[in-house]
Amino acid sequence: MNIKIPFPEMKSEFKRILLNHKFNNEKADKCAEIFATNSLEGIYSHGVYRFPRFVEYLKKGYINVDAEPELVHTAGALEQWEGNLGPGPLNAEICGNRAMEIAEKNGIGCVAIGNTNHWMRGGTYGWQAAKKGFVFIGWTNTEKNMPAWGAKNGHLGNNPLVFAVPFGDEAIVLDFAMTQFSYGKMEAVELEGKKLPFAGGFNNNGELTTNPGEILEARRPLPIGFWKGAGLSLLLDILATILSAGLSTHKLSELEAEYGVSQVFIAIDIKKLSNFPAIENTIADIITDLKESTPAETGAEIRYPGERVVQTRADNLKDGIPVIKKVWEEILEL
Amino acid sequence: MNIKIPFPEMKSEFKRILLNHKFNNEKADKCAEIFATNSLEGIYSHGVYRFPRFVEYLKKGYINVDAEPELVHTAGALEQWEGNLGPGPLNAEICGNRAMEIAEKNGIGCVAIGNTNHWMRGGTYGWQAAKKGFVFIGWTNTEKNMPAWGAKNGHLGNNPLVFAVPFGDEAIVLDFAMTQFSYGKMEAVELEGKKLPFAGGFNNNGELTTNPGEILEARRPLPIGFWKGAGLSLLLDILATILSAGLSTHKLSELEAEYGVSQVFIAIDIKKLSNFPAIENTIADIITDLKESTPAETGAEIRYPGERVVQTRADNLKDGIPVIKKVWEEILEL
Repeated sequence: MNIKIPFPEMKSEFKRILLNHKFNNEKADKCAEIFATNSLEGIYSHGVYRFPRFVEYLKKGYINVDAEPELVHTAGALEQWEGNLGPGPLNAEICGNRAMEIAEKNGIGCVAIGNTNHWMRGGTYGWQAAKKGFVFIGWTNTEKNMPAWGAKNGHLGNNPLVFAVPFGDEAIVLDFAMTQFSYGKMEAVELEGKKLPFAGGFNNNGELTTNPGEILEARRPLPIGFWKGAGLSLLLDILATILSAGLSTHKLSELEAEYGVSQVFIAIDIKKLSNFPAIENTIADIITDLKESTPAETGAEIRYPGERVVQTRADNLKDGIPVIKKVWEEILEL
Repeated sequence: MNIKIPFPEMKSEFKRILLNHKFNNEKADKCAEIFATNSLEGIYSHGVYRFPRFVEYLKKGYINVDAEPELVHTAGALEQWEGNLGPGPLNAEICGNRAMEIAEKNGIGCVAIGNTNHWMRGGTYGWQAAKKGFVFIGWTNTEKNMPAWGAKNGHLGNNPLVFAVPFGDEAIVLDFAMTQFSYGKMEAVELEGKKLPFAGGFNNNGELTTNPGEILEARRPLPIGFWKGAGLSLLLDILATILSAGLSTHKLSELEAEYGVSQVFIAIDIKKLSNFPAIENTIADIITDLKESTPAETGAEIRYPGERVVQTRADNLKDGIPVIKKVWEEILEL
């Protein structure tokens, strides 16, 4: 059964719990804000439903509550930071903000951070940057959870990649992992006894299948675009690792849990471009043309990445954030 | 029937033809080098087989032989250039080199160019940068050739994206378009009367199919990762357009042929990173781990992007570059 939790209530419960786990007031507030906003905007898997695991990682000491990220090395408009295994969302917000500061001076800014923790929803930092008028490109590596192309066992991460641009008062934000479907999605579809809408991986016989249970058993989720997504995962891992001087998917997968990841944050300050005042119209023109596509199904709307977020945010602000009642009750006990 | 053309002969024939079409000596040499190298490295579709269309575009005036790209605006480590519709490969090489120069000073450098022409093989500029010790990220927009997700007609480009990193004396280079299979690939498979190895698009009934003829008829190639690749295409187009102050896929598709595209070149100088001397080992370690994957088919080798290029280059240097005899004879008449 679902219940609906108002945003301020969800945030304040998260904050209360984080304060109980030794976060100081400012950090508890920021971190609660991110978890609650992810939920508000419909990314429940990396908001409310992820919060219990975040608390579990705090308890196990995988996340250092008091750690602050530190600047290690400056190479012009590129900075290398050490995450000291601090809370992932806080480290990521700091890096995103720092990339914007560099971009304000240098047009473009790049911050890479090693030994940080899961940033939850990469789109968070895309939205933050784009709503402040910056282009954002960022990605993280992850533990091994996807096979290379032609391989049976996972040596690659699903390494989510984010692109964001300002769009009026809102943003266009693409936030996608290198697997066609997430493990969470496949588990949910399996629980419902349904099939995936498209082949989502290989079964133990090496056949492409829409059966989520078979894919989960084989642990062979499909990379987006087959060999292309597998290649992109590898390159994103290499870049995150070398730019941050942090751990690769290979190395961090040797740890007892997924921590110590490497991330990259690139911001571009569009106010500094020659065509700045016209950029808003340029983007609107591209979106207008996209929406003039002929839909494959009569009456369907062609959407741009992030478009649904705006509606979901408005709905959930008005009606509250839907949560499985049992999960919410368990969170209140954390 | 295939014949084999030695690299120096192919390059000198290309150069001779370009000199006949009013290229000066230096430009003819550089441009011939790029077309011949693309062929040498096995990317025939954007080397020898593309050369006749390049000459056709010269004749039609879509490409301005004498045009030089010009710096229009500097925003710190980001520069906006005007391509003046010069030869795409030459403009792209200049922009790639300029991004590296900026990166040598600023750690990271970004050059965006509008009103340029088709760069042929994006990997060219990735290989050039990576072999000089730079990380490279670059992309181009294209004319409309791929539908948005849920749409029937093409409002997106296939917008190739390139990631490259140094790897010993060679490079790891990922160069991929947003369509699962190129039109050229689908045409070739259709000519052979075969099926694609995986669904490559939709037919006129809106069904996913491996029949290349049906996809070509419907003009509905599949974006990599379905909605994900469609979203990435859109974001790459928006970024190339606004960063270069150039034309979007939408706008350039209103022209009578594919010219006036927008491109982005980002270089990072890894010599400036704190972990520089160790980066080579870090990358080698990631590749070693990748290669320890269990292959799905016994004895198969798991490859990294660009790995085949090194072998193909060596083979073609030794044996000559394979070309359909009739095509080569037609080129000699250009």
